Order: sequence, then structure tokens, then C-alpha cells
Amino acid sequence: MTLSRSGPGFKSQWEHHCDNMILLKNCKYIVTQNNKREILKNKDILIENNKIKDIGSFENADKIIDCSNKIVMPGLINCHTHAAMTLFRGYGDDMNLQEWLENKIWPIEKKLDGEKIYWGSKLAIVEMIKTGTTCFNDMYFYMDKVAQACVECNIRSVLSRGYIDNNYHKKINEMLEEINKVKELNSDLITLALGPHAIYTNSESSLKWFKEYSDKNDLLIHIHLSETKKEVEDCIKKHGKSPVKYLYDIGFLSHKVIAAHCVWLSEDDIKLLKQKNVSLVYNPASNMKLSSGIMPYHILKELNVCLGTDGAASNNNLNMFEEMKIAALLQKVNKTPILLAAQEALDMATINGAKALRINAGSIEPGKLADLIIIDLNRPDMIPLHNVVSNLVYSFDGDVDTVIINGKIVMYNKKLININEQETFDKINSFKFY
Amino acid sequence: MTLSRSGPGFKSQWEHHCDNMILLKNCKYIVTQNNKREILKNKDILIENNKIKDIGSFENADKIIDCSNKIVMPGLINCHTHAAMTLFRGYGDDMNLQEWLENKIWPIEKKLDGEKIYWGSKLAIVEMIKTGTTCFNDMYFYMDKVAQACVECNIRSVLSRGYIDNNYHKKINEMLEEINKVKELNSDLITLALGPHAIYTNSESSLKWFKEYSDKNDLLIHIHLSETKKEVEDCIKKHGKSPVKYLYDIGFLSHKVIAAHCVWLSEDDIKLLKQKNVSLVYNPASNMKLSSGIMPYHILKELNVCLGTDGAASNNNLNMFEEMKIAALLQKVNKTPILLAAQEALDMATINGAKALRINAGSIEPGKLADLIIIDLNRPDMIPLHNVVSNLVYSFDGDVDTVIINGKIVMYNKKLININEQETFDKINSFKFY
Repeated sequence: MTLSRSGPGFKSQWEHHCDNMILLKNCKYIVTQNNKREILKNKDILIENNKIKDIGSFENADKIIDCSNKIVMPGLINCHTHAAMTLFRGYGDDMNLQEWLENKIWPIEKKLDGEKIYWGSKLAIVEMIKTGTTCFNDMYFYMDKVAQACVECNIRSVLSRGYIDNNYHKKINEMLEEINKVKELNSDLITLALGPHAIYTNSESSLKWFKEYSDKNDLLIHIHLSETKKEVEDCIKKHGKSPVKYLYDIGFLSHKVIAAHCVWLSEDDIKLLKQKNVSLVYNPASNMKLSSGIMPYHILKELNVCLGTDGAASNNNLNMFEEMKIAALLQKVNKTPILLAAQEALDMATINGAKALRINAGSIEPGKLADLIIIDLNRPDMIPLHNVVSNLVYSFDGDVDTVIINGKIVMYNKKLININEQETFDKINSFKFY
Repeated sequence: MTLSRSGPGFKSQWEHHCDNMILLKNCKYIVTQNNKREILKNKDILIENNKIKDIGSFENADKIIDCSNKIVMPGLINCHTHAAMTLFRGYGDDMNLQEWLENKIWPIEKKLDGEKIYWGSKLAIVEMIKTGTTCFNDMYFYMDKVAQACVECNIRSVLSRGYIDNNYHKKINEMLEEINKVKELNSDLITLALGPHAIYTNSESSLKWFKEYSDKNDLLIHIHLSETKKEVEDCIKKHGKSPVKYLYDIGFLSHKVIAAHCVWLSEDDIKLLKQKNVSLVYNPASNMKLSSGIMPYHILKELNVCLGTDGAASNNNLNMFEEMKIAALLQKVNKTPILLAAQEALDMATINGAKALRINAGSIEPGKLADLIIIDLNRPDMIPLHNVVSNLVYSFDGDVDTVIINGKIVMYNKKLININEQETFDKINSFKFY
């Protein structure tokens, strides 16, 4: 791959400046993820400012990247994670959920502060960029610090402060203060959202408050829903109905709701989710690791199903390529090899995620945001190339070459631009939690 | 990492010569996989000829590799694969088993010849070395060509010609000729074994012949066993008993048998396998992709369970790190997060595999074969390092730095030594199958 100067806008340093025009030249394959799911061969992609200007054949740009032995595809969208939980990668595994939460995660989370969250998020962002994720939907604390890390690293995100009104309590006003701090950053990379953690950690009045606030301010709502059998059983015991029916009855559900996990759904639940156009997030690795169960994808085909890694404490990485593979494999194991084909996994991780998050990305088409990744074909897990999408989903390990977010090159030829990776690693390794 | 000369045996070219002494200096962590599963900190490993001489503190060697920010661990052992099926990576996915075999795999396999098998195996070996596998148990055709690739690339293998006496038939004598050709290579890297494909593709007399030949020549037997529900049901219909009981009754089972898949086992089957000391191979990705089912690991704890990727046509890569993760996750999903902990997955992929294949490897101890891999700690998926084994199994993507097999460096700092990777890629890409 060569990177050559061909216009007056060229700068010798890779900065997060506005690269007026970037030309991806001679792309061997463009996995467009457009409506026809076209895979184009030997075309160029022209990027102007933060958008894809056109696909075709072009000559001049401020920067030209030779893609003659590369795949160019939309950046992946991680629709449910808790980025800073990279801090707890490997801290507690192979434990029962309750023991894990009570003896491991909750005590260590009490030791978190804004600085740790900032660096933990930065580590997550480094990992995500290196594995081809260009946008993530995050729920955690100190979201102003998360936002700061996103802006500095130039990654797109949807940020919601996790809100729990019967546990380590933070008042609504404090949450709103955090939201205001994020707003002050005034970045087009960041979308604010609301994050009531779950029905079992929020009262009915809290959930209703979120719904009203969401309506008034046109904000997405990110919530955990029907993750475990216990959650559903407890809800039926308490409210006489399933978590989905409960949320439906209090008027909470809408197309703005992004519901993570959704493992335990009845057919009636699915009808209600469909009626309200809720987006669902499948988190197969986490669901396996915590023994939550298997999302009933075979009866969810009419819904918008996205993909997420969950936090690194229950995965334990943030590699969306690995997640696509596990997503497809998990649906098949007890059913049929036909279920959740490679193309569907790729859809979940791209256009479906973009739809849920209301981001003008997820496909390579003129007018879309320039959130793109470039993958080398000269590697054993991409050879032979009987089927591009199959290799991406089932074989490729996620080690992408180049990442462009919002029209800016954030990684070129496996080197991060303007992110001090070593400083991040050293900082994280210096933290003492126990 | 630096590589410096410190003795008279140093050669400027990286050849597969005998590096008399290699010193792995200041290993930050040594994951020994010894009986106590010790993880040693800040020690050196001294390699002499093809063996580990000692662990401790040493100064002089022909080559010194600085491991001060590295993990050193035993190379992984892939106990069930069909290496050359890398040729069919992504050629048929998301299809029902019978349709996949009849319309995709069997027709394309007819177009194979020795040359294609050689290059397909070489591609597999490149992929395996790059993801930390130092030994594999292979079943396919033209095993003399596979052996040639192994010797050229300096990887350890156990090779058995897949034998099917009711399908694309090859006479026993032809198989023996292939065995003799492999013997002529006279390589200490290669162990010959026998490969009756399965009970449903071999007659009783064929299976008995294999058992006798195995006894007479002290050869391991590699077989597919109880992979699908259909295999078990058909066997019960035909023989009035399960595949395991059938093999037991004809006297086939012994400690020399390595049985791949073993998804559909009754408690009686398990008693017989235990009694005969059969080694089992778990192939979780393949079992998921082909909807074969889930190996009942929770009742197999007294057996020697190893790990394999199966062929790339049903996985679709040969990454044993990914396989360890999927192995652990799959057992948990419908049961408990405690089942198949990270350490057990690592055992499957190292010492259990070595035991099954009767290879003096799988752990880092004085006197063991020097089959070792070195992993950089300075990468996001290895940070933080709350738990070394957890990060290796659940987070690390398999992109190892350095691989030593039989005391020879076959990859150093991600560069293959004496293997022309590009030639292999180009060759494979030039093959026309359809």
C-alpha cells in the first residue's frame, strides 16, 4: 500500500485535520452493504470532507490510498458495550453471575473514577479501531470522560449514562449535568442517549421519566432487556407479566429504544417489539459466557437485530469480527446450518446497527458518512476467496489495515494516527485495583 | 524484542539448521502447563537442539531472544483437522450437511490432486504457525504431499490417510504405498497414523483390519465418531447399538484411538470410552456451524479431551486461540458459567493433545520438545493482565510473535522463516476449481 501526495491539501503529518478529499484507488472489492448488497470490483471511492462523495473512477485527491489488493467495507458498529470495562478484562471469569457481580464486578466498580474511565475507554477505542469498529453504543458512568476519549481518538459513539435508581444511586440531575458536559464538547461524532440500565434496577416512575425525556429531547434509549431467565421470572412474579409486556404497558417502548440481549422473549413479546419498532442487540459471546441463553433469532427475522460485544468483562474482547462469527455459529448449533447466514451477520454489524443508532452510515454509498475500513487480502485467513462475505465473517480475525472515521484516517497500515497507544497501555497497567 | 548473536553457532541467515542453543531471556510470564500449572515470572528458558534443557537463569547461547514483555507458552496442538481443506474455505457455508457434502464438498474434492493438496496444506501450515499451532493431527489424502509440506515448513504433525471403503475408494495397498512414501522422508517431525474415516464409511472388516494393523505397527488411529445424531440413529438401526458400543464390540477401541467430535454420547458410551482410554477431540466451531450439537463435556471430565478446528471448510479458519474461546463459551451457554474454565480449554489445546498424540510436548519443562510460542503483551487484547490464562483464552486473537518448533525458529517477530508465504498465496489463488 502506498500513500501519495497529489494535491495542495496534503500535510506531512497525519493529523486529525480535515482531509478535504481522500481517494481509495482500485479497490479490489467494495462490500457496499447497499440495498442490493452489491460487491463491486476494481472501483474507486472518493471521500470529501466527512462523507462518501462517489464510487467510480477518479484521479485526483489530497490523499490517495492504493487498495488494489484490499477489501473496503463499512466500519462495524458495536451496538451494545460498556467500553471502560476493558479495565476488568479477565478479572473474573468462569463464575456464576450473582457471585461474579457481587464479589467481583460491583466491588471493583466502586473504585472507578473519571480518570480510570477515561483511560479504560481509550483502551477500548484502541482495540475497537484495530479490529474495524468505527462506532459504538456505550452505557457506563462518567460519560463526559468517555466522550473526551472519543473526540480525542476520533471515533463515533452513542453515549448513555447507565442509570440505576435502586443501587449505587446518582440523581437524575447529576446525570443531566453529565449530559450537559458532553453537549459542551459539541462534536458531530457523539450522539447523546439515555441509559436506564434495566427494568429490575429502575422503578416504574424512573422508566416513565426516561420515556418522557426521550420524547421531549428526541433521544435514543439504551436498555438491557430480558437478558436472563431470572429477569423474566422475577418480573412475572412482581408485575404478572414479562419485561417486554411491562415496558409496553407503561408506554416505554418505541422506535427509539435499543434493547440489549433479548434472550428470553415469548412470541407475544416479539409482536409487541415489532409493533413498536424496537431495535434489538444480539450479544452472543456474553450470552454464552454468562450462560444467559440463546436469542431466538429464528423468530425475530422481521425485527431490526444489531450486534454487540457487551463489555470486555463478559466477552473478553471487543472484536466485532469474532462476534459476527460467534453470532452465526451460535444460532446454528441446535437448529440448522442455514440459520443466520454470513450476510445476515454482516448486516447486523453494519446497516442494522446504523439504523438503530440513527447514524447515516453502515453502507458505502454516495452521501453516507465516510466510516470505512480497509482489509488486506494477502493473509492466510483471507485465502482463497471463494466468497468475500464468508471470509469476513467466518475466517478473518479482525486485524484490519486502515480505518477512516468521519472522513479522517485514524489508522493507516495498522498504525494508529494521533492516538498514543503506548501511553494508554502503560497507564492502564499502572492502575491498582486490589 | 532483539535477537543477538552470542556464540559461535550463530548464522546470519534464518535457516532450518540446528540452532544448538537458544535462550529465551527474561520471560515475563512462562505458562508452563506443568502438573502444577505453574506460571513462572522473569525466568529464562534454555533450548538445546530440539529440547527444552532448563528453566532458570542463563547467560550464553547461540541465539538470545529478549522476552521481557512476552508470554512464553507451549505451542498449541490441533488434534483434528483436514489441513488442505483450506482450499475450500468459504466455498460452501450456511447449508444443510447433506446438501453441502453432495453439491459442494464431494464434487470439488474430486478435482484435487497431489499438487493442490501440497499447496493447500502449506496454506494451512502458514495459518497455523501464525496463530501459534506447532503440531496438528491431520486426516486427508495424498499424505505424502502433506508430509512434504510439513517437513519443508518444519511443523510437527500426525498424518493419517482418510480411508473410506464405500465411497471414493482407494485400496488398502495404495494407502500403504502412501504411508511408505511418508516413511521415506524419515523426519522426526512426522508421526504416521491410520485414518479410517468413520463407522458409516467403513465396513466392519475394514475397521478390524485397521485395529490389527495399528496393533502390529503401534500406530494411532484417527476416526470421526458420533458426530451427528443421524450417525448414531443410523447405527442403532443397522447394528442395534450406538457407534461407540459397535466399535467396542468389534474390539476396535483402545488408548491408541483418537475420536473426533463425539457429540452424541450416552452415559454407557462414555463408560466404554473411559474403560478403553480413548482420547476425544472437541471441535466446537465445526459442531456449531454444521449444527451437529454440543459435546457433553460436563460428563466427560475423567476422559482425555483434546481440541481441534476441523477443516477450514467447516470452521472456517484454523485459529486454535479462537477455538479455545469458542470451546469454553459453548459449554457454558445452556448450563453454567463455571463449566469448562479457561485453564481447561488451555489444557485441551496443549497437554491433553500431546498425550493423545503421544508427543513429548504440550508443556514447558526440562526434557520436553522445544515447541514453544511467544506472545507480545503490548497489545490491547492482552491489557490489563489480571489473569494470564484468561487473556490467552478469552481475549487474545492468536496473532503470536514468535514460534519455535523442534528447537527451530519458524517464525520470528511475525515473519516466517524459510517459508515463502507469498508464493503459497499466489499458487492457491491461481487454482481454478469451477
